[in-house]
Amino acid sequence: MSHNYCIGTDIGGTTIKLAVISTEGEIIKKWEIPTDISNKGSHITKDINIAINNTLSELNLQKSSILGIGAGAPGFVDTSTGYINEAINIGWKDYDFGIELSELTNLPVWVDNDANLAALGENWLGAGRAVDNLIAVTLGTGVGGGIIANGEILNGANGTAAEIGHMTVKTSGGKPCNCGRLGCLETETSATAIVRKAYEKIEDGHDSNLVQLEEITAKSVFELAADGDTASREVLAEVVDILGLSLANLSVAINPNKIVLGGGVSQAGDQLLNPLKEAFQKYALPRVAEACIFELAELGNDAGVIGGASLVKQYHQ
Amino acid sequence: MSHNYCIGTDIGGTTIKLAVISTEGEIIKKWEIPTDISNKGSHITKDINIAINNTLSELNLQKSSILGIGAGAPGFVDTSTGYINEAINIGWKDYDFGIELSELTNLPVWVDNDANLAALGENWLGAGRAVDNLIAVTLGTGVGGGIIANGEILNGANGTAAEIGHMTVKTSGGKPCNCGRLGCLETETSATAIVRKAYEKIEDGHDSNLVQLEEITAKSVFELAADGDTASREVLAEVVDILGLSLANLSVAINPNKIVLGGGVSQAGDQLLNPLKEAFQKYALPRVAEACIFELAELGNDAGVIGGASLVKQYHQ
Repeated sequence: MSHNYCIGTDIGGTTIKLAVISTEGEIIKKWEIPTDISNKGSHITKDINIAINNTLSELNLQKSSILGIGAGAPGFVDTSTGYINEAINIGWKDYDFGIELSELTNLPVWVDNDANLAALGENWLGAGRAVDNLIAVTLGTGVGGGIIANGEILNGANGTAAEIGHMTVKTSGGKPCNCGRLGCLETETSATAIVRKAYEKIEDGHDSNLVQLEEITAKSVFELAADGDTASREVLAEVVDILGLSLANLSVAINPNKIVLGGGVSQAGDQLLNPLKEAFQKYALPRVAEACIFELAELGNDAGVIGGASLVKQYHQ
Repeated sequence: MSHNYCIGTDIGGTTIKLAVISTEGEIIKKWEIPTDISNKGSHITKDINIAINNTLSELNLQKSSILGIGAGAPGFVDTSTGYINEAINIGWKDYDFGIELSELTNLPVWVDNDANLAALGENWLGAGRAVDNLIAVTLGTGVGGGIIANGEILNGANGTAAEIGHMTVKTSGGKPCNCGRLGCLETETSATAIVRKAYEKIEDGHDSNLVQLEEITAKSVFELAADGDTASREVLAEVVDILGLSLANLSVAINPNKIVLGGGVSQAGDQLLNPLKEAFQKYALPRVAEACIFELAELGNDAGVIGGASLVKQYHQ
């Protein structure tokens, strides 16, 4: 059988992940190369082309057996053309990435935001398998999101859909966000926010084992909370309440079959998931809550390349 | 030319609206019949069939020239089958409406929620013309919504998508909503909410011309606010702030090209639209706000039947 492989690539600030995946979802090979962000990231596209050529030779695959490349970039993408408006971490601005990669590789290329591709990856081979309506949330240093509706990625008017980390959750007293505004979901529920709130508890003079830590991490706050530390529990209760409310309000619009949680904070597992489900049910329209299952993401760092391959599978003719 | 008309019908608690519309968007005829809600609405489907047959005869149209019927019902709809889970206003519960109407009329039938069809109508021939990503909001006795994303209605996992009136906007001190919960967008920004808030101002002893009104309506609150009445202005400022915040948070997920406002409250025009745009810009991610235009709905009560016809146009083979 010919023409039955897809290439996914996920361009991050440190590494570029790649994978060759069959249209049936078998991962033939996955690997990564360092991201060369020198000279405004101008070597990246060539490096991807070389990495692909080398691997196809090594695997003895003809280019004619590749349906195309699905690429994720960390920024604002015009998905109809693969044009990158801005991808700060890798130095790109106003760059015609899709067309350039397509010309270099002589393959069709589809490009999307990395968080959207992670959602699509979980939707194909991960925790969001085979549902038509999915919200994927990444809780890490920041809060990212991808939304699948009617079986397709939501991109919106200018590629800014599903930027759920920038829902406004505090209309007064909110902390500054990277986006330039105050009180975003990201500044209240990311790993960074958990750590900040824990330090605030110490500053406020709470009697807590947090003071004994050399450095507070989100993980340590979860651990102390599990051991009964009141201040840590209060931090997490507030985070979970805000996140549950925001996901409930999103879900009244999207009515998802499933919400998939990934990123570092999601490693807390049921300690996060159980109270989050409760908060969600408190705030969501009952019929919306009934339809929606919570799950932990399954694909970890592979979600993006799998999503890239899925994009090819979905759109190639 | 044959096979080039669509029938739209919009079933309300008082009247059933119908229209015959060409696939080019020309309204050949629109009319309405009373809704017979006796006997749990069991006559409605037959009445629609009779109304359609009479009109086709009158217009000298063959049934073979009709591509199908798109019907809107006020409730929860399984859009894949046309099954109505519940439509309280017209007495339906667990009713196989789509199949029954299709058998009676011998035409293909597509069914959706009435608010979703109104959004689709505005998307075809109204204020939301030719945009792929649209949020349509109806501000009346309640707050309804319809969302078009990637050019299609969002229905979600169980037909509850776009129920934006039930976003939770007050986590404490919220008023009871018809949905059984507290503090929904509907209980804070509907015409009903505006009137309630105005009466609260009087009860709180504010010096306001509101006390001179025999009966307060949302319209009278807008009129007094325009004349400089402070209490009325405060009521509307609060309503607009909550609505702007909710639409901003929705828009960070959907990234719409346009938000279209309909319903009785939207008749306030620029007096509503201008401060609402300001509140929206305060709370929305700048790139989301840049992409999004606000407009008043254009189709009024015809939006539903036009949306029904659009549904046929979109899905017939």
